[in-house]
Amino acid sequence: MDVRELLEQVKSGSVEIEDAQMRLKNLPYEDLGYAKLDHHRKLRSGFGETVFCQGKPDAYLLEIYKKFYERDGEVLGTRASESQAELVRTAVPEVVYDPISRILKVEKPGKERRGCVAVCTGGTADIPVAEEAAQTAEYFGCRADRIFDVGVAGIHRLLAQRERLDKANCIVAVAGMEGALGTVIAGLVECPVVAVPTSVGYGASFHGLSALLTMLNSCANGISVVNIDNGYGAGYLAAQINRMAVR
Amino acid sequence: MDVRELLEQVKSGSVEIEDAQMRLKNLPYEDLGYAKLDHHRKLRSGFGETVFCQGKPDAYLLEIYKKFYERDGEVLGTRASESQAELVRTAVPEVVYDPISRILKVEKPGKERRGCVAVCTGGTADIPVAEEAAQTAEYFGCRADRIFDVGVAGIHRLLAQRERLDKANCIVAVAGMEGALGTVIAGLVECPVVAVPTSVGYGASFHGLSALLTMLNSCANGISVVNIDNGYGAGYLAAQINRMAVR
Amino acid sequence: MDVRELLEQVKSGSVEIEDAQMRLKNLPYEDLGYAKLDHHRKLRSGFGETVFCQGKPDAYLLEIYKKFYERDGEVLGTRASESQAELVRTAVPEVVYDPISRILKVEKPGKERRGCVAVCTGGTADIPVAEEAAQTAEYFGCRADRIFDVGVAGIHRLLAQRERLDKANCIVAVAGMEGALGTVIAGLVECPVVAVPTSVGYGASFHGLSALLTMLNSCANGISVVNIDNGYGAGYLAAQINRMAVR
Amino acid sequence: MDVRELLEQVKSGSVEIEDAQMRLKNLPYEDLGYAKLDHHRKLRSGFGETVFCQGKPDAYLLEIYKKFYERDGEVLGTRASESQAELVRTAVPEVVYDPISRILKVEKPGKERRGCVAVCTGGTADIPVAEEAAQTAEYFGCRADRIFDVGVAGIHRLLAQRERLDKANCIVAVAGMEGALGTVIAGLVECPVVAVPTSVGYGASFHGLSALLTMLNSCANGISVVNIDNGYGAGYLAAQINRMAVR
Amino acid sequence: MDVRELLEQVKSGSVEIEDAQMRLKNLPYEDLGYAKLDHHRKLRSGFGETVFCQGKPDAYLLEIYKKFYERDGEVLGTRASESQAELVRTAVPEVVYDPISRILKVEKPGKERRGCVAVCTGGTADIPVAEEAAQTAEYFGCRADRIFDVGVAGIHRLLAQRERLDKANCIVAVAGMEGALGTVIAGLVECPVVAVPTSVGYGASFHGLSALLTMLNSCANGISVVNIDNGYGAGYLAAQINRMAVR
Amino acid sequence: MDVRELLEQVKSGSVEIEDAQMRLKNLPYEDLGYAKLDHHRKLRSGFGETVFCQGKPDAYLLEIYKKFYERDGEVLGTRASESQAELVRTAVPEVVYDPISRILKVEKPGKERRGCVAVCTGGTADIPVAEEAAQTAEYFGCRADRIFDVGVAGIHRLLAQRERLDKANCIVAVAGMEGALGTVIAGLVECPVVAVPTSVGYGASFHGLSALLTMLNSCANGISVVNIDNGYGAGYLAAQINRMAVR
Amino acid sequence: MDVRELLEQVKSGSVEIEDAQMRLKNLPYEDLGYAKLDHHRKLRSGFGETVFCQGKPDAYLLEIYKKFYERDGEVLGTRASESQAELVRTAVPEVVYDPISRILKVEKPGKERRGCVAVCTGGTADIPVAEEAAQTAEYFGCRADRIFDVGVAGIHRLLAQRERLDKANCIVAVAGMEGALGTVIAGLVECPVVAVPTSVGYGASFHGLSALLTMLNSCANGISVVNIDNGYGAGYLAAQINRMAVR
Amino acid sequence: MDVRELLEQVKSGSVEIEDAQMRLKNLPYEDLGYAKLDHHRKLRSGFGETVFCQGKPDAYLLEIYKKFYERDGEVLGTRASESQAELVRTAVPEVVYDPISRILKVEKPGKERRGCVAVCTGGTADIPVAEEAAQTAEYFGCRADRIFDVGVAGIHRLLAQRERLDKANCIVAVAGMEGALGTVIAGLVECPVVAVPTSVGYGASFHGLSALLTMLNSCANGISVVNIDNGYGAGYLAAQINRMAVR
Repeated sequence: MDVRELLEQVKSGSVEIEDAQMRLKNLPYEDLGYAKLDHHRKLRSGFGETVFCQGKPDAYLLEIYKKFYERDGEVLGTRASESQAELVRTAVPEVVYDPISRILKVEKPGKERRGCVAVCTGGTADIPVAEEAAQTAEYFGCRADRIFDVGVAGIHRLLAQRERLDKANCIVAVAGMEGALGTVIAGLVECPVVAVPTSVGYGASFHGLSALLTMLNSCANGISVVNIDNGYGAGYLAAQINRMAVR
Repeated sequence: MDVRELLEQVKSGSVEIEDAQMRLKNLPYEDLGYAKLDHHRKLRSGFGETVFCQGKPDAYLLEIYKKFYERDGEVLGTRASESQAELVRTAVPEVVYDPISRILKVEKPGKERRGCVAVCTGGTADIPVAEEAAQTAEYFGCRADRIFDVGVAGIHRLLAQRERLDKANCIVAVAGMEGALGTVIAGLVECPVVAVPTSVGYGASFHGLSALLTMLNSCANGISVVNIDNGYGAGYLAAQINRMAVR
Repeated sequence: MDVRELLEQVKSGSVEIEDAQMRLKNLPYEDLGYAKLDHHRKLRSGFGETVFCQGKPDAYLLEIYKKFYERDGEVLGTRASESQAELVRTAVPEVVYDPISRILKVEKPGKERRGCVAVCTGGTADIPVAEEAAQTAEYFGCRADRIFDVGVAGIHRLLAQRERLDKANCIVAVAGMEGALGTVIAGLVECPVVAVPTSVGYGASFHGLSALLTMLNSCANGISVVNIDNGYGAGYLAAQINRMAVR
Repeated sequence: MDVRELLEQVKSGSVEIEDAQMRLKNLPYEDLGYAKLDHHRKLRSGFGETVFCQGKPDAYLLEIYKKFYERDGEVLGTRASESQAELVRTAVPEVVYDPISRILKVEKPGKERRGCVAVCTGGTADIPVAEEAAQTAEYFGCRADRIFDVGVAGIHRLLAQRERLDKANCIVAVAGMEGALGTVIAGLVECPVVAVPTSVGYGASFHGLSALLTMLNSCANGISVVNIDNGYGAGYLAAQINRMAVR
Repeated sequence: MDVRELLEQVKSGSVEIEDAQMRLKNLPYEDLGYAKLDHHRKLRSGFGETVFCQGKPDAYLLEIYKKFYERDGEVLGTRASESQAELVRTAVPEVVYDPISRILKVEKPGKERRGCVAVCTGGTADIPVAEEAAQTAEYFGCRADRIFDVGVAGIHRLLAQRERLDKANCIVAVAGMEGALGTVIAGLVECPVVAVPTSVGYGASFHGLSALLTMLNSCANGISVVNIDNGYGAGYLAAQINRMAVR
Repeated sequence: MDVRELLEQVKSGSVEIEDAQMRLKNLPYEDLGYAKLDHHRKLRSGFGETVFCQGKPDAYLLEIYKKFYERDGEVLGTRASESQAELVRTAVPEVVYDPISRILKVEKPGKERRGCVAVCTGGTADIPVAEEAAQTAEYFGCRADRIFDVGVAGIHRLLAQRERLDKANCIVAVAGMEGALGTVIAGLVECPVVAVPTSVGYGASFHGLSALLTMLNSCANGISVVNIDNGYGAGYLAAQINRMAVR
Repeated sequence: MDVRELLEQVKSGSVEIEDAQMRLKNLPYEDLGYAKLDHHRKLRSGFGETVFCQGKPDAYLLEIYKKFYERDGEVLGTRASESQAELVRTAVPEVVYDPISRILKVEKPGKERRGCVAVCTGGTADIPVAEEAAQTAEYFGCRADRIFDVGVAGIHRLLAQRERLDKANCIVAVAGMEGALGTVIAGLVECPVVAVPTSVGYGASFHGLSALLTMLNSCANGISVVNIDNGYGAGYLAAQINRMAVR
Repeated sequence: MDVRELLEQVKSGSVEIEDAQMRLKNLPYEDLGYAKLDHHRKLRSGFGETVFCQGKPDAYLLEIYKKFYERDGEVLGTRASESQAELVRTAVPEVVYDPISRILKVEKPGKERRGCVAVCTGGTADIPVAEEAAQTAEYFGCRADRIFDVGVAGIHRLLAQRERLDKANCIVAVAGMEGALGTVIAGLVECPVVAVPTSVGYGASFHGLSALLTMLNSCANGISVVNIDNGYGAGYLAAQINRMAVR
């Protein structure tokens, strides 16, 4: 940052070597401050920052939305409640809330979407997590193809969608209970599959543990797993992979 | 057992009513002792007793094989080691040992096999458990159709076997790791599916726990689960169900 | 469904081969966007589709009930709430709700029931799960014999019911806490036993885990296990097995 | 039951031996019906039946209290809610409810209490479970000495109570969190110790699992464990042991 | 210890009050030294000290056996290996080793045994743990009635032993796998039942966890649990309870 | 307490040596009662007693606050609710409540704070636990430097704070989810690090288990762990360690 | 497949409607045959099939290596033992074995490697898993940059490698114990990170569970997880992602 | 490191500002390389680096020992095997191996030891872990007071050691099974307690999990926990804390 200036002062003799040495000692830390680095990252990647709304105090949430919106003209928030949506709307009227995915966002109009991420679910109860993934991927510049309720207990439903699967650069497989969807898909397609276990189910699903273990133990190639119900993480990763394909 | 005799003695007066009353009081317990009751069961069901060989002391094992063989002319043992096989052979030379399934048995020649149980595996490493199931089902009077290495990571392999699956009265689905085989099969067929998780795998398979949970959380209808690696239990149950169909 | 009709139209020339080809491609199921209904299966097995009501959005639920009822004249829903029952009644007035089992159904009048499934519970708290099993089995054409509160802590209660147990083609054993009911029953009878662990209990029952493990470790022959509280799954499986016996 | 009659009919010839044989086959089961056996047990042991109130439907609860009260003149119920207490009071006005222990009971006046059971807790939060144990033990005829808040993090508090501990015939040690109370007590006294883990705590106490494991791993002699929060079970067992000492 | 002396010195003025105060401060700890207290306990209870042999270094083991044998004329060791037995025999030739229970002991001849503890097992594989319990109880002065292989999968085997069960003052129920033996017994008898889960089994028995949970969740009254495979602990506790009955 | 008096009475002859001996026998227990011993401790350490408010009945809570406040002029309570704060304020008007940390305290004015404890968090959601730690450390005489939202997913944020970290005598690292904050800090600094896992997170965080395991498995030197969400315990320990440095 | 033909036969009347109906029943499944699909996949992707050697019987292993080698001129095997390497070498002398990664392969000479995958480890003990990942990625056409022993307990080691990290198209982060490496890396770079937990560690690492949970709970964006010790899976996925970048 | 040189070159003009700027950009990373930073740390703290021997390949281990020994004149290795000791001795003959603690070290003669750390164990089986802690603390400059076999099942044994406990600046409490030792000690003393769970035990100790949970749930103040069997970590931390006290 001020490294050049400092070096010039050293050269001109207006700063002592010992002083310069001391100031350089902590340089990388002060110099690579939070905002700056993230700013750089954003410019480079086109991926704006996001807000995990759940549990955020009202005052903090408002401030973050305002600050992000002013800086970037858009903002993506996840796990927002209905009342948080109303709160943020008082300060950022352009904000849009989707009660299914619980996404609360402002998106720049006319954003181009390139490439395609397919988001599949095992059942209808997995849709909220899938929507979080799909809308995140869309926010970060992909088209999202929603292929819902194609669980492996009725395998023909999935097989009937092969053409759509083949068109995606990355597939997000969202499933609870037995969680085998990702494996079957990864065995059918060529692109990476991001598996998202959901907490949908009861009894021995243990709040998503069963689906998580299933997915980690997948015998298929090209599959990896994110946290239970982490639609956002899957959507982000899928957008990253999709971007590689469309560059 | 001796109830008839006792009743005859009561009738003839050689036993007093009070005495008979006392002896009958505990009849079901003393009279229906272990061996006898099982004998009755065997006559009724045609399912001979079996031996869980693992961990049995040599002397005990030998005695059991001899006793069962003498009484029934056949005996089925599971989880036998190579050295146990050699030991038992010294006393029962007709005994046959299969190192894959670890089954050590004598089977009556010319036993009729009716109906069909299909035994499927996800991978080749599940075959020992599957063979235990298949040979158990065969021992109890079914034909067993072995359909191995049809795991869901390459779903076409399983789909190619649909006709064979449709012919079975019960299907045993043996799988480790993700364990989704049973669900996909149960979604394809009309008969009951018995799922057997195996301890095959590593890492987050946790010695079969992952496959077990997957199977318990199956979204398909008509599927139930037995203990990890319990090929015998699955084969027995499949034979029971098959018998209903062929009666 | 319309396959025969379609084929007839092909034969008569009123439908072009290319059209028929396209329509057959997606034949086996009906796509409601969010949910894909499986019609193919029903024709084959005689077992109508069922609805897992819990967590279904109102609009979805209504549509599904209406559509199933129109098509089949009956519909079985599980885990329905009181308010879901009221909702569905507005569209399908014939619907009947049972608050114990939480089953919400319309059943064709005069349905014949053949064979018998016995449904046993360890305690009175297991009855809701048992009723789900019993009514499911009845819906799919069995008689259900309810044998409740016969837990193994008072073994004589169970032993007194042996005759009823012997008459069943399949027994559903529903138990929480220690969950040993299935094992004792399987040791007494000749038919398959489907064990259902329940989440009844407290402390180290860990929401049904204890009963689940007990049942998986059963030393008896002819027993298998379904998910915790999965009365529906047990009832369906029992009906499948019973059907084999009565054919 | 009718064994004598049956035998007399056999003797007189009015019943055929084959018939008698058939009827005797299931004798022990029908003959050992539920009510009778429990009645016998109660007479023998002086321990009346108890009611686990939690989750019981109102109608069922009312009926049980009335029936038990009519038969025995007293009744012990555990885990009752405030509203259940009010309900039962409408039918059995003598019923007494303790909101701490959640015990809802009628006890015969003037019941003699012999011997002594000490009930200790680690902290004040364990008192509800301890009271359930103490009042159960009292109901079954013991004196209960309450020694509360003597957890091992301040070992002098426990040591100061040694004389009271020495007077007990059985000690119930109730503790959550680290759960070491039982071990320290068992190392100090001569009588059996029944350890009750409680679900008190947070974080890595995992709802009582930590205390449960601690107690099971006790290095002291003469200690055993009951389920998490199972004050009733501990009180019953302590009363059983105390009865042996005072006979 | 020297309290009297100290007090005399205070009285005589040869020790200052402040000094005495300081020395008394830690009195109870120094005064209640290890050996003395245990010695006192032993005299009172007749229960000699025992040795957990497993993992003890040779030198340490030898010394302990010699010391205990010299002091008490007898010694009970558990979980000893064959080679430890040989080692100890070099120093204490009277020592007796039982390879089943792995108990290594010297017992005073002519020890009287009063009362009776019944030790039951579910299967034959539980016998080593049961023998540890039985021999421990015998060492501490009880008669032990061994009732093996009476698991609940063949309930008649257990029911046939009711008379023997009724004669015991305490019953030790040893079982692995499903572990329901203790519950059924506790429902039949009047005396306390100590349940010992064993690590016998495979798969979802999880090294005894399944049996442990089953036992903790027992619906029967008068049952408590010790650690997995802890035959010694159960035998000790049973002897404590039996002693109460025979006093 | 009365030891001095007793000794004086012995010296003066008004108490017999035998009597004194008897009374001294149990001295450490009766004499070192709870309040007294803690009083001694407090004088020595300057660490006043604290109250775990959660779940305390109102009457009990009021009494404790009053008693502590009267004795010490200050009191620290943790996990207090808003309504508990209002309750206590009726009796102790000086009490101050912080809804973030849920600390309810009276602190002596003008308390000196020496040395420094740094309290770091991974995210903003960990702040309540961190504040509990910071305010506890302050209450016990440290300055607390709050360094929040420096999680390892943006490592530069933490590195920018190195100078503040270097000035602390102990660092409390509070983090949920992946929980790696403590390890990175311990690798940067020279002083001990106390890691506090938090229950912040969802899915496979399993209520703090993930962060807990991460912290226990830290590869860094000089780090130890307290219970999930146990800010108080960490703050207390940090104050203890800080006191050593500033003495 | 033959749908058109079939429809034409229906139209022409050479096939009856009933027959056509029957043959259409299984249509969608037969149409997706095994061989074709895999053949297609391989041609398309350039990713040859691989062999999981561990536990494969000798005869089977030999046959697979020979068959793959003949067909493709190369073969990749993982988790091979020293003796398996020797065995395969008898039939395929070109085979090369690496005892660190346990990879047993033949690779076509002169294979071009494009793009770059960085493989990082937390410690030296993670290297075997990392090598499996690196060599897999190389086999599938990437360059692999090995950056080992850069665990977060000494964060400067990792920070010193930023330039190498920035050049990769995908980063594989291999770590045991606390497992935080992936999160820190994902916070530094722009490309996807595949995290591999290893079973390295002891105590509360629970054979990799700790690292697995840490990685699943990562707060960083763009990270996903594979099974414990699954270097192969990570390398495959990284190669897939890298291929997208270099196309 | 070379910052000064670089600055001098800038000043003298022999390096261009642009070049210097570039080289400084990555300065903190390259400049704060592994060895250097650790060297700095060592000089500051007097705590030399240590080697985790277990699983290290022979060649690597030899090299590390030689390098560390040459640089520092001493080296501390943990978890070394007998054969590793022999190997290292060939290159560093001064190395000393302790088979109990498995520590393999060279220590500078005449090292001063200041302050005191007490290391306590619950039983004799915990001694190996305790010795690792004690010798680590000694290596880092403390005296270590070993207080072994003072488990809480015989609380008097611990109480008798109060004076020794009071003299320590930090106490390491090592215990398996129930693991309550740390809590009782922390309730007695004023200094911090580091609790080390050990994997000693069987059954429900689950390889140290039971002791770990107990320690995390401690109700005492001033206690924290390290990984199961992590004697080294506890010894290091205790030495850090002790150093604060003796400075």
